[in-house]
Amino acid sequence: MTTVASQSLDLAERAPLLDRFEDVARAAMPRLTPDEAATVERELAAWTRLDARYPTPSAELAGVAAAVPERLYDDSAQVLLRMHEIAGSGNYQSCLSSLPLVRACFDLGLVPGHHPGDAEATDAELIVGRGHIAPSFYAERYVRGAFPFAPLTTLHRDGLTGVVHQNWGFRNTMRYSLGVGVAQAVSLAWELRRRGKQRKVVCLAGDGELHEGVTFECLRFAYEAGLDNLILVVDANGKGIEPLRAPVSREYLSHYLGTATDADGQDTESVAKALRELLDTPGSGVLLCATRKEGHSFKPPATPSAPAPRPSFATTSGKLLASFQEATERQLAVFTGDMAARFGLTGAVPYENVGLAETLSLGLTLSLPDDTVKVVATDAMYYMDSLSMLTEATTSTRNLLVLAGRSWGAWGGASNALNLLDQVMGTKVYEPVTAAEFTACAARLLTDPSTAHVLSMVDARFAEPGTHCAADIDGAVWITPPGTDGQDAPDLDCAVISFGYATVLVEEANREFGVPHLHCAALRPHLDPALTERLRRCRSLLSVEYNGVPGGFGEGLRARHLLPVTAHGVTGDILNCVHDKQLARHDMAPAQLTERLRDLRENGPAA
Amino acid sequence: MTTVASQSLDLAERAPLLDRFEDVARAAMPRLTPDEAATVERELAAWTRLDARYPTPSAELAGVAAAVPERLYDDSAQVLLRMHEIAGSGNYQSCLSSLPLVRACFDLGLVPGHHPGDAEATDAELIVGRGHIAPSFYAERYVRGAFPFAPLTTLHRDGLTGVVHQNWGFRNTMRYSLGVGVAQAVSLAWELRRRGKQRKVVCLAGDGELHEGVTFECLRFAYEAGLDNLILVVDANGKGIEPLRAPVSREYLSHYLGTATDADGQDTESVAKALRELLDTPGSGVLLCATRKEGHSFKPPATPSAPAPRPSFATTSGKLLASFQEATERQLAVFTGDMAARFGLTGAVPYENVGLAETLSLGLTLSLPDDTVKVVATDAMYYMDSLSMLTEATTSTRNLLVLAGRSWGAWGGASNALNLLDQVMGTKVYEPVTAAEFTACAARLLTDPSTAHVLSMVDARFAEPGTHCAADIDGAVWITPPGTDGQDAPDLDCAVISFGYATVLVEEANREFGVPHLHCAALRPHLDPALTERLRRCRSLLSVEYNGVPGGFGEGLRARHLLPVTAHGVTGDILNCVHDKQLARHDMAPAQLTERLRDLRENGPAA
Repeated sequence: MTTVASQSLDLAERAPLLDRFEDVARAAMPRLTPDEAATVERELAAWTRLDARYPTPSAELAGVAAAVPERLYDDSAQVLLRMHEIAGSGNYQSCLSSLPLVRACFDLGLVPGHHPGDAEATDAELIVGRGHIAPSFYAERYVRGAFPFAPLTTLHRDGLTGVVHQNWGFRNTMRYSLGVGVAQAVSLAWELRRRGKQRKVVCLAGDGELHEGVTFECLRFAYEAGLDNLILVVDANGKGIEPLRAPVSREYLSHYLGTATDADGQDTESVAKALRELLDTPGSGVLLCATRKEGHSFKPPATPSAPAPRPSFATTSGKLLASFQEATERQLAVFTGDMAARFGLTGAVPYENVGLAETLSLGLTLSLPDDTVKVVATDAMYYMDSLSMLTEATTSTRNLLVLAGRSWGAWGGASNALNLLDQVMGTKVYEPVTAAEFTACAARLLTDPSTAHVLSMVDARFAEPGTHCAADIDGAVWITPPGTDGQDAPDLDCAVISFGYATVLVEEANREFGVPHLHCAALRPHLDPALTERLRRCRSLLSVEYNGVPGGFGEGLRARHLLPVTAHGVTGDILNCVHDKQLARHDMAPAQLTERLRDLRENGPAA
Repeated sequence: MTTVASQSLDLAERAPLLDRFEDVARAAMPRLTPDEAATVERELAAWTRLDARYPTPSAELAGVAAAVPERLYDDSAQVLLRMHEIAGSGNYQSCLSSLPLVRACFDLGLVPGHHPGDAEATDAELIVGRGHIAPSFYAERYVRGAFPFAPLTTLHRDGLTGVVHQNWGFRNTMRYSLGVGVAQAVSLAWELRRRGKQRKVVCLAGDGELHEGVTFECLRFAYEAGLDNLILVVDANGKGIEPLRAPVSREYLSHYLGTATDADGQDTESVAKALRELLDTPGSGVLLCATRKEGHSFKPPATPSAPAPRPSFATTSGKLLASFQEATERQLAVFTGDMAARFGLTGAVPYENVGLAETLSLGLTLSLPDDTVKVVATDAMYYMDSLSMLTEATTSTRNLLVLAGRSWGAWGGASNALNLLDQVMGTKVYEPVTAAEFTACAARLLTDPSTAHVLSMVDARFAEPGTHCAADIDGAVWITPPGTDGQDAPDLDCAVISFGYATVLVEEANREFGVPHLHCAALRPHLDPALTERLRRCRSLLSVEYNGVPGGFGEGLRARHLLPVTAHGVTGDILNCVHDKQLARHDMAPAQLTERLRDLRENGPAA
């Protein structure tokens, strides 16, 4: 997949980042302007000639930029827009909202490698708690001449990550948890004090993430432990994913952090001046920057000729809940941590947005009447900081329906999240992939109200499979039945059994093979003994789940039934790339599954 | 086990609570004064004569009290002391600290069934967030004539629970999570507003639990959602389990709750007067009650003749860490959420107490140098609200050692907690039961620093087993080796394989049988293929773990090795009783295990 030019060099001598960016940048070419494409070509060519060993990835990128110094844009806002237009997705508005704050950090020399001069350099460390604004830093590095253009064309496409990472010049690395940046900042402030250092820590945070309980734990501790070296810079745009109910509380923050200062967050100089003052004043402090954010996610401009894309399955939740409510006449209480759009709630059912505070979204169910159907709509991953509260809810409430959004795209969905939810006492986990399955799960809740029903709601856009489990939501249904050849239940040579969304992927992969294929909507299905025995006698048996293997669907079949199934699923962490790329990175793309099915049929399971 | 008197009645007609309390109360007789014993006898006799059907347990208890109306004590503080002396354990000081607040709630008619009169009755609901002060309510009900004495003698002995429960006249039920009461109160306040009710919600909270992030999420939401019907009554005794670093912040609370009032928390009238004013004033509010707490747990008076009890294994952690630090000369950073005493940290190693804020205890590890060994000492159950932050730590830090205390006694340790921790990315879980195993786990961390090592530290007091896994901490060791009869590795008829603390229990149970017995310290051991094959050929194979069965040690052996092992472990929730009782309730007492081993040898595994 590498170019002819690069193949002529010894691979060991290639600058290490070229392999990461080259193919992705070339794939982006059709979306570039002619000038951009020419620049990328020049940069890639220069990159192949670099043979120096750079101490860090940032240094290597600066080396490429130095080799092709001309700039296409001198305004980082324009660079940000182009990055998102080329990517087709991302958190453009968040990045734009924080851009003046980011520029101020560069101007004050807070960004590693960007000290404007010793006289100006401030003695402080920068923790970027707004994890998604990494692109603002790349854009600013670009206009300041320390970053090439080519990597910018790879954002969210398995090249450059949209979340801050130490690889790309940040002091801290984030996964996805909101509020972690504040913890990282307090950890660093504590360590600096322990070592007797006078440096301060500057933490860039969003007003939305200050809803998270852990940020309170951090600020309360910093105050009580006497840390006097923490400066919290708040991008106060009044929005999490949705608009905040109320502005972030100045009184609360200043109680724990001391000096509170305001700045015009749309004006770099105003931010820089106020931040400099806080850095020069003894003690901790908070800088509230009034900013603006138009939306949350980048929406590519509509192309009139293209048909509207199919909605993601998760966004149909609101309508499905409304139909369920109408059919059953049950009172619903719906809570979401800022994710009404993700679940299509707006205009479909009344709901309460609790802000970015997932533990609270569960807590609010605790004292409601038994008969009320309590719906909590959030992200599978967010729940990982609320499992004790979830246990309180599963053991003390009735009629609890948890919608756990899952994508492994830009927002959450760790591969182990569902398996963790399944381990919580009093839960049953399903991953419906048709409207009928969703409704069957909700109906099942009413017949078993003391068990919390967790529905993994996949963010992917897909056509419903040819058949489904709605008639027996705990069972299994043949998507591709075995040929019976006139026999009642002949032995199977091989078979594949898949869970939830993986069924959609396997169905596509299996078209040319026709391997007998079972589908389950339940993470822990009840297979009837005859079926179990028939599966046990297969020469080779594969399970597929778009879910973590440890403790997952396939391992459950092994543990409960001692079925010699080879469990295929997700083994690593979530990755910072869009859905289609995630599938391929986790060996779950239909073409990859086709190979697994071929092996299954021809060679039996892997050892 | 029932008495002759009760056997003469049709069992279906017995008052339902008698079965729960009678045997336990009789077992307490040796610890009662003669007057107490006589009263209990009279009550039990009266109870057997009750044939009325009571609508609630509280009504039944009031019925018994009415049948034997004379009171042994008229001061509920004295009743509390006697309850704890008879129980031999509990949170006496916490109960005493809150007693004037509890009395005020009775005086104001906030306790169901205790309205002093219509004119006095306030239109409010009481949520008791200080889950452990249930005994204060029982004691007060007793002196007010609505509770018999006999149940008081069963506290923490599998009779009356020390944690608030709807069964015993409370509006809310708690498990163990701190901060849940505030969530329950806000949930109720939200529901009352939604239904257009004017009632207020009074929440009794401790100052320590207000460290929990979820309480901030709740108070922030209540403010932003415009809830004007929440009154937080804080027992401000300046202590969680350990002394607080700083008093609870009046400024923080009053920002979110409005009116803040002080009361002398040692004076019932002062509390009642201030609370009445808050109830009568429109809007939410906070009442800060200055109280005193001497210690945390009840300590029975020392008996000079008795030898000091063996320390619990968990309390040896501090010394073991100190030895490890001395031997390796590594820098340690130790964080605990108020649990220094539980792990024996004080005087052994420097540590940072973060208060009752477990997510923070993990967050503080995030920015420390790679080489520093980061130790987080907390309760296995607490972690269930921090698994996302734990994942941040396991994926971004090195040399992380988590000490997860576990008891299933009064403090935490849900049966699924360890299995959840094992599901977190980048962790390995061990349950050492000897000093050498603890040290082997810590040494292993240094050789595999990118994997977080979770050590389940059992609170039980026990003698170390005869041998241990320290030489191969991931492997298995024979506690009771099979007889070889001169053969190299003869087939086993049956065998038992146990995890961690269960080994201690099985070793005791197995003394008279000599069933071949393997011990593992790792939740996911690496068994060598020859051993696995030998186990597979057993006629009957049992695994034992003092841990949740779903996703646990035994199921892991089935899932990974398809070993036909019968997994014996804990299947239900934690129970509100002391350690010895917990063992029996979970079928883990040595006498019960003896029966399992007998079955194993004679009949093979259960179906």
